[in-house]
This record gives sequence, structure tokens and C-alpha cells, in this order.
Amino acid sequence: MTEDIGKIHRRGEDTPFLNIVLVHPGIPQNTGSIGRICVCLNARLHLIKPMGFHIDEKRIKRAGMDYWQYLDMTVHDHWNAFLESEKPEKMCFMSTKTEKTFYEHKFTKDEYVVFGSESKGLPKHFYEDYKDQLLTIPMPGKHARSQNLANSVSITAYEAYRQIFLGNL
Amino acid sequence: MTEDIGKIHRRGEDTPFLNIVLVHPGIPQNTGSIGRICVCLNARLHLIKPMGFHIDEKRIKRAGMDYWQYLDMTVHDHWNAFLESEKPEKMCFMSTKTEKTFYEHKFTKDEYVVFGSESKGLPKHFYEDYKDQLLTIPMPGKHARSQNLANSVSITAYEAYRQIFLGNL
Repeated sequence: MTEDIGKIHRRGEDTPFLNIVLVHPGIPQNTGSIGRICVCLNARLHLIKPMGFHIDEKRIKRAGMDYWQYLDMTVHDHWNAFLESEKPEKMCFMSTKTEKTFYEHKFTKDEYVVFGSESKGLPKHFYEDYKDQLLTIPMPGKHARSQNLANSVSITAYEAYRQIFLGNL
Repeated sequence: MTEDIGKIHRRGEDTPFLNIVLVHPGIPQNTGSIGRICVCLNARLHLIKPMGFHIDEKRIKRAGMDYWQYLDMTVHDHWNAFLESEKPEKMCFMSTKTEKTFYEHKFTKDEYVVFGSESKGLPKHFYEDYKDQLLTIPMPGKHARSQNLANSVSITAYEAYRQIFLGNL
């Protein structure tokens, strides 16, 4: 929304409560926009290589604007390096290849929410390795196919926030 | 997310249930991305002139991709023309200039959810004319200021969807 308006601190929490994981992101503007969401919402961002851009690319910082300096971000060389480093207790994987919606999932604090690349989705073996952890964003539109990656992260991260902090408000 | 995966019809509804209104949108890529959300979610899109671009601009169609042809969109010459044409029974206005979050609001079917421009927010007189209808997206991050317009629409439209169709699921 507007850029010129003071902060709203409904909770004022300073501790990240969620992890957003982008596997092989391809479009720097999306990653920049997702960085902004993470700063606004207090989520940590994990990027899994290979990526379609260099992380110091100017376009990311431009899209993420002055927020970028506050972003809690880690770049991982590959998926297994991510697993070894983070040892995630709980993960879910966003995909259009499942019928189970994220509204039927119970998000918990410090969960890792994993998103595939814009062009290819999740790596193919994920659909087998993590088949019980796949979730989708419902799209009631007759002509719906998929959402933009940054929009998908926005929607999912806020549903996680709502569930974790606000319950049935 | 991925572009190559079949449709998910959790509800398969074909009737729009929500109106997204962009007042003086300035960035065509944002409007294109918002058009895609509207197609996925079954929302009508209203654009209020003046805008920062021509509506037939190639960049919009590129951002909205093949979805654009399915978009239920109306361009209004100005705010009063919108009011006269649509006669909205219920409106809410997204802003960072209020403490009341959209989680404390009860979204209803066919509501009009109004967003200001990327650079200037809502027109100044809206803060007086509609002061009891302002809502904000909570941003718990210490360094949060505002979200990207398309991300804000995504988050808000899906919260409206959840409230209207899913209740306390």
C-alpha cells in the first residue's frame, strides 16, 4: 500500500515465527517482493541454489527496497545442505498438485513453508519424498490455474500468521 | 506457483463473490498481477481513473498472462462514477492509517474492498469520508512499513474468501 505512513505494531514481535523456503527461485523481483513480506511479517527467508539470479543483484534490492537490510535470509547451496543446516522439525510444501488446502493444515510456530520455482514448481522427487506434506491454495475461479509466487507466499504466510497468533479471531 | 499444472476446483464456483477496487493504480505490473488473483479467486476488478498507464498496455497483459481474457473488469472514469454505477451496499478501505485489522472485520459476499495507489495511498478525503471503514493488514515485523499492492490484495482477498466460504475451518 502506501510508502509514506508510519509503522503499525499490532504485536511488535521481534522474533521470527515462520520460515519461508524458496527452492530454485528464478525471478529476482519475486524474491525481492518475498523479502519484503518476510520483513513485514517477521519470517526468515531461505533460498536454495541453484537460483536464476545472483543474490547481490541490484534488481532484488530495488524490489525489496530499504527493507532488504533487515531481512533474515540464508542462502543454501542445495536442498540437503538446507536440511543439514536447519534440521527442520516440521515442513510443508506448497503445490497445485494436491487437493489438500492450507486451510486444512495446522501451521505451527517455526514451521518451514517450502515453495518451488516459478517455472518448474517443486523438484520432482519432492512429490514422492514429501507426498503427505503437500498443501495447496484453493482457487475457486473457473479459469484459475496458479498464482504468482510472491502472491502465493503472501497468502500462505498470512494464513500461517493468523493460525499461529490469532486462532479463531 | 507452477504454470504447468491442472486446475484445482475446490469449490468450482463461477459467480464472483467479491469486488476489488483499485483507486488510481500507478504500476501496470501490479494491476496485471491483481487481475490474475481476481481470476483465480472469482473476484471482480474495478479500476478508478486516473491511472498511471493505459489499460490496453502490453505489460498488463503480459503480467496477467492468458488469464486476462477471463477477467471481469470495469474501468470507471472517477470515484463518483464508480459509486453511481455500482451502488455498493458495503465497502471497506485498506490503509496503513488505522489500527483496526481486517481480521477484526466481517467480510461479506459482494463487498467492495478498496485499495489506494502504490505511491499515494487512498485519496486524502477518503480518510474523513470513510473513516469508520478503514482496515489494515497487521505487520508484526519491527521494521515493517507497508506491503506491495498486489501482495496486499492477495492477502486481503484470501482472508475475505476464508471468512465468507470457510467460516472457522
